[in-house]
Amino acid sequence: MKEMDENEIIDFLMEGTRTGKLSTVREDGHPHVAPIWFVWNEGKIIFCTMDSSVKAKNIRHNPQVSICVDDESPPYAFVIIQGTAKFSDNQKDLLKWNTILGGRYMGEKLAEVYGKRNTVEGSLLVEVTPTKMISEKDVAGW
Amino acid sequence: MKEMDENEIIDFLMEGTRTGKLSTVREDGHPHVAPIWFVWNEGKIIFCTMDSSVKAKNIRHNPQVSICVDDESPPYAFVIIQGTAKFSDNQKDLLKWNTILGGRYMGEKLAEVYGKRNTVEGSLLVEVTPTKMISEKDVAGW
Repeated sequence: MKEMDENEIIDFLMEGTRTGKLSTVREDGHPHVAPIWFVWNEGKIIFCTMDSSVKAKNIRHNPQVSICVDDESPPYAFVIIQGTAKFSDNQKDLLKWNTILGGRYMGEKLAEVYGKRNTVEGSLLVEVTPTKMISEKDVAGW
Repeated sequence: MKEMDENEIIDFLMEGTRTGKLSTVREDGHPHVAPIWFVWNEGKIIFCTMDSSVKAKNIRHNPQVSICVDDESPPYAFVIIQGTAKFSDNQKDLLKWNTILGGRYMGEKLAEVYGKRNTVEGSLLVEVTPTKMISEKDVAGW
């Protein structure tokens, strides 16, 4: 099994328009997983969601999360982050982060357009502090 | 929000080398998510894992799972399947399914090679029966 070093992990997370798949636990104990637009910033995963989303409800009940980012082409690779989610103390920065996320996922020319589109009543800024990061590259190698 | 119909969902799941991100719950209540090679077959998700994997341990403890498959490019789309996982009654078919999975993810020429590579002591065939399927296409649309 070939692991990535920390710099490789960060480059991998931030490559192109790779989405994160955020896993949370529902109040009834069932798992939930959904895609997120995210960025890595100062040791944390930053993403935005709606207050009414399953993600936000689950995090409110249980802040433990797991995030998977993978390369879906041969020879395949992935990073899995376990961590703790927290609604940011800086919700005033929501537009700033939605603009950064818009730039990453829709291209720089549309960054501001998407920043505004996604900053609406009920949007929330969330930070995930990793407690463990697992990686594997060349999964299909010998 | 634009949903897919059932045929679109199945086509989406089976397009190219899209991996599933399988979410399970650990015995301590924390979520786990990891990529899987899978196929859709007769209304079920079929995948293989190792008996010693976190996935298998969690499923043994709590068979409720959630699987996310997404398109990581604009305008983005995803399918989320909630369901119940079960270790197949037909573990003798492991080589057959690993060969099908090898063909999907490594190409038909390497199907048999990867079928054999992945059918080893401790491999397990798993079936997920969906209880709910959620989809969204054109996520970044207006």
